[in-house]
Amino acid sequence: MYKAPVEDIAFTLNHVAGLKGAIAEGRLGDLSDDLVDAILLEAGRFASDEMAPLGPVGDKEGARLVDGKVIVPTGWDKLYQDWAAGGWNSLTSDPDFGGQGLPHMLNVAALEMWNGGSMGFTLGPTLTMGAVDALVAHGSDALKAQYLPKMVSGEWMATMNLTEPHAGSDLGVMKSRAERRDDGTYRIFGQKIYITWGEHDVTENIIHLVLARLPDAPAGTRGISLFLVPKFLLNADGSLGARNDLHCHSLEHKLGIHGSPTCTMIYGDGKFGDEPGAIGYLIGEENKGLACMFTMMNNARLAVGMQGVAICEAATQKAVQYAKDRTQGKAPGWSGSGMSPIIEHPDVARMLVTMKALTQGSRAICYSCAHATDLSHHGDADEARHWAERAALLTPIAKSFATDAGVDVASLGIQVHGGMGFIEETGAARLWRDSRIAPIYEGTNGIQAADLVTRKLPLSNGDHVRGFIGELKEIAEQVRASNLEAFGETAARLSSSLADLEETTEWLLARLAAGDSASALAGATPYQRLFGLALTGVYLAKGALAEEDHGRDQRLSLCRFTAENLIAETAALKDRVINGAASLQAARAVLA
Amino acid sequence: MYKAPVEDIAFTLNHVAGLKGAIAEGRLGDLSDDLVDAILLEAGRFASDEMAPLGPVGDKEGARLVDGKVIVPTGWDKLYQDWAAGGWNSLTSDPDFGGQGLPHMLNVAALEMWNGGSMGFTLGPTLTMGAVDALVAHGSDALKAQYLPKMVSGEWMATMNLTEPHAGSDLGVMKSRAERRDDGTYRIFGQKIYITWGEHDVTENIIHLVLARLPDAPAGTRGISLFLVPKFLLNADGSLGARNDLHCHSLEHKLGIHGSPTCTMIYGDGKFGDEPGAIGYLIGEENKGLACMFTMMNNARLAVGMQGVAICEAATQKAVQYAKDRTQGKAPGWSGSGMSPIIEHPDVARMLVTMKALTQGSRAICYSCAHATDLSHHGDADEARHWAERAALLTPIAKSFATDAGVDVASLGIQVHGGMGFIEETGAARLWRDSRIAPIYEGTNGIQAADLVTRKLPLSNGDHVRGFIGELKEIAEQVRASNLEAFGETAARLSSSLADLEETTEWLLARLAAGDSASALAGATPYQRLFGLALTGVYLAKGALAEEDHGRDQRLSLCRFTAENLIAETAALKDRVINGAASLQAARAVLA
Repeated sequence: MYKAPVEDIAFTLNHVAGLKGAIAEGRLGDLSDDLVDAILLEAGRFASDEMAPLGPVGDKEGARLVDGKVIVPTGWDKLYQDWAAGGWNSLTSDPDFGGQGLPHMLNVAALEMWNGGSMGFTLGPTLTMGAVDALVAHGSDALKAQYLPKMVSGEWMATMNLTEPHAGSDLGVMKSRAERRDDGTYRIFGQKIYITWGEHDVTENIIHLVLARLPDAPAGTRGISLFLVPKFLLNADGSLGARNDLHCHSLEHKLGIHGSPTCTMIYGDGKFGDEPGAIGYLIGEENKGLACMFTMMNNARLAVGMQGVAICEAATQKAVQYAKDRTQGKAPGWSGSGMSPIIEHPDVARMLVTMKALTQGSRAICYSCAHATDLSHHGDADEARHWAERAALLTPIAKSFATDAGVDVASLGIQVHGGMGFIEETGAARLWRDSRIAPIYEGTNGIQAADLVTRKLPLSNGDHVRGFIGELKEIAEQVRASNLEAFGETAARLSSSLADLEETTEWLLARLAAGDSASALAGATPYQRLFGLALTGVYLAKGALAEEDHGRDQRLSLCRFTAENLIAETAALKDRVINGAASLQAARAVLA
Repeated sequence: MYKAPVEDIAFTLNHVAGLKGAIAEGRLGDLSDDLVDAILLEAGRFASDEMAPLGPVGDKEGARLVDGKVIVPTGWDKLYQDWAAGGWNSLTSDPDFGGQGLPHMLNVAALEMWNGGSMGFTLGPTLTMGAVDALVAHGSDALKAQYLPKMVSGEWMATMNLTEPHAGSDLGVMKSRAERRDDGTYRIFGQKIYITWGEHDVTENIIHLVLARLPDAPAGTRGISLFLVPKFLLNADGSLGARNDLHCHSLEHKLGIHGSPTCTMIYGDGKFGDEPGAIGYLIGEENKGLACMFTMMNNARLAVGMQGVAICEAATQKAVQYAKDRTQGKAPGWSGSGMSPIIEHPDVARMLVTMKALTQGSRAICYSCAHATDLSHHGDADEARHWAERAALLTPIAKSFATDAGVDVASLGIQVHGGMGFIEETGAARLWRDSRIAPIYEGTNGIQAADLVTRKLPLSNGDHVRGFIGELKEIAEQVRASNLEAFGETAARLSSSLADLEETTEWLLARLAAGDSASALAGATPYQRLFGLALTGVYLAKGALAEEDHGRDQRLSLCRFTAENLIAETAALKDRVINGAASLQAARAVLA
């Protein structure tokens, strides 16, 4: 059973991602180390004791649609109420609306643990948090006053309605439409798919944020508006009124996260109300809906990254436990009686240590991204911009590296289990199935890579990423200067990977400057992976450099393993970026 | 829907794996090119038209255990009868027992196509073929006469009973026991798990091959005997007699291949018959059961490799089709109206071409392995030994590389589908789920790697693998000498990867010679991958060198893509083998 890794999380937050330093420098208000510890401990307890037992229930039962009502898995309704009552929905929200105003880093850490307990469950609250962010940033005061307090407390959950059957990654071709009404409201019509937690009775109202197009809107992405469309309309006193004209038409039959209801939602077909059309309220300005979405997109992408980290951790825990318990054969050097625990076999140990390394690397990248987001809200304008650029740069890497790692680590977890891994009761297969959506949603990892290369590298004319690589090189230098034997060849390996990163980055910037986006895009995915691997090596080294006695030997040896076994791949990735585009272009013929 | 790639298969068999040359040299009896073509065409038709439509049915319905009877998915019973009536069960079997005595290569090609149609279905016949091989090699004349004709024709299916809950990879600790009876028969007692197609009514009898231990047997793997244990005993005239004392206790709830019944079998608990004990007949000698198993293990492992190739092909076909149909966004350089087909996006094209390359590479390795097996049955003793060693060397690489590729390619297939890939109705997810068992059964890929390094590299004191690498280098030289511009940097890339392979091979042989198997085993999996990647590059080049007009441009460009994008990873893998062991040893502490 998953046990939230509170110590590893606290260490990474404090000593790799920079939380401890930020607190000491007073950049995070009156947040104290003690409060951080208390929050992590309690979030971990809830994830381990309350959520983890209900994860497999969700997978087995799934969400069901019965007579138009969505039934969530047994125990999930109470779990949600307990979770919301614990104040977990509002860690980072604006105190003006009942939130706790805590740093994003803490929420991200808690998200990791909850996703470790149950990814399908946690997806619901994750969507609510995104909707809160969008409403805080762009809603009118009246809308905020009416809706935010209950969304912040978790009394109402919320959804994001973007995708349509023909409009997934490309929202510009969306067909859902909105009509203006004389009273300033809108009527919404259309079909939305893949709506996470789109319908249920866990909360008495559900607040849908829906993208739609006005009749006179410009074509493409500049003609999309964002609307708040509640399941139940509110009376003047804020109490629940009439049912709005929207409903869940069907649930998807998915590979994983079975407990999370993935709904096809129909707006405005006349099923409810006097006349067809779901009543909606504009958020932000007309035709600026996509900009409102972008506000929350970085946070949402990082939240998906946390699903990857969580799957890594859960799969690793399960595999390590199994490998200690299961005996089979005799490993080289095994002197015990009978068969060895399989953890003694070098190949099994290689798998498990690789899983550990990818877990820690993903965690460090994601937390560093959250740290940048937090600091982007503090300091002077230059400082805020610096950290906003850092968060922007790290977000696609965090999302993609952690979610790819989730799939890879869960697959290794199955392999460690042997035949048992293929049997559903073991639970290793469930983690793998669940993991597979994370590289897809909130922008596929290929779209993250395109974003990284075409939008993030050019920030500050390329000087932001250059500065960042410079910081990473300093850490490699600190490893060299430490003269710690336990680092092995780490310093040289880091330097080599960072040189690969630097050369590839400059090559991409030059291609972009030359207007050759096709070549840059052809190498975007290998570049994104290169960046993630180099960061993994450097961040593990940063942790190992921290002079914290507890666990330092392990951090050093995991760092060395990572440097000497995993990150040499950057050379091949560099080659793929720089030399691969021409052969890819030539090979397109094989797809004819 | 899957369409058997008959042309690609024929090309690879003939021009990469060497079938055409072997026929021309008269090494394969009176087999003709026309007969090969006719067999491939008809096997392909059956796979595409008859099997492929029933694959998804098997996944959805699964096999079910109802009142002790196993119900197979709708249509599978008739599918089996039609398949067996087509003579497909007996392609390679001994003509003395009704077989067609055709080369193994043809059976392997057909297996690819049937697995492409439905892996869960094809698994049943695959086990029958293995049992036929074991019985032909080791059974008494009386047993052969009684059982082989109907097993060869497919009138009866057969199973292999090896695994027990505590005895998976390590069969030495098996507990199932056999007692001698005065009439020369044995009584079998015990529980076996993961028995593929262990019970059903598709054929009127099922022939179980069961490993068990005699009371006075030596401990470990030298004390295991193999028995033939029929579901129904035979009367003197060969007609079906009494029900034997064995039954299916339960079916596993698996991640994939749902249509294939995976049974827990109970032998000898007294459910059937006068006294407890399933009646069994010894195959081969007492305590030599594992040797009998090894006879068929190479073929069985290659058959699993074919599952990997089949999944690669099916996933690639599905993804290419989707990427042509689905439109989204505008790719760089897209001049059409509206959105581009997603196949135009460089990142999607990269995924699809990578899928093609891994499919062709896996296919070429597997067919080359089958070719070696075929030639090991011809020529003089030295020649036969040479090819037997080649088959032995290639088997672990074929099994592991193709099955890992199956998982990776199926995962890329999901990614190409975006959100649709996570919806089960699309079918991409099913292929991924099915694929995941292949790296596990018939010896996990980690065990294949250990076999490759510790048993196969030392063949002929290392001279066999050295000679093989020499042959591969000659192909790289031919690429260089061809001066074909379309090869791009292929020659240099092949040389570089082959140098990595050579250096790593010598390092491993030296470690083994020094008695340091722990270090050799620590690098076994990366070495196995290195070997597979280098072979992929070389075999694609070999195909591209063949002066067949049809499709040569495509073969050249796919080869170049593979050489310039995929095989540079060998450098990192070499590093992991040679330099990774020490850091792995140090990092074991993190698993404490």
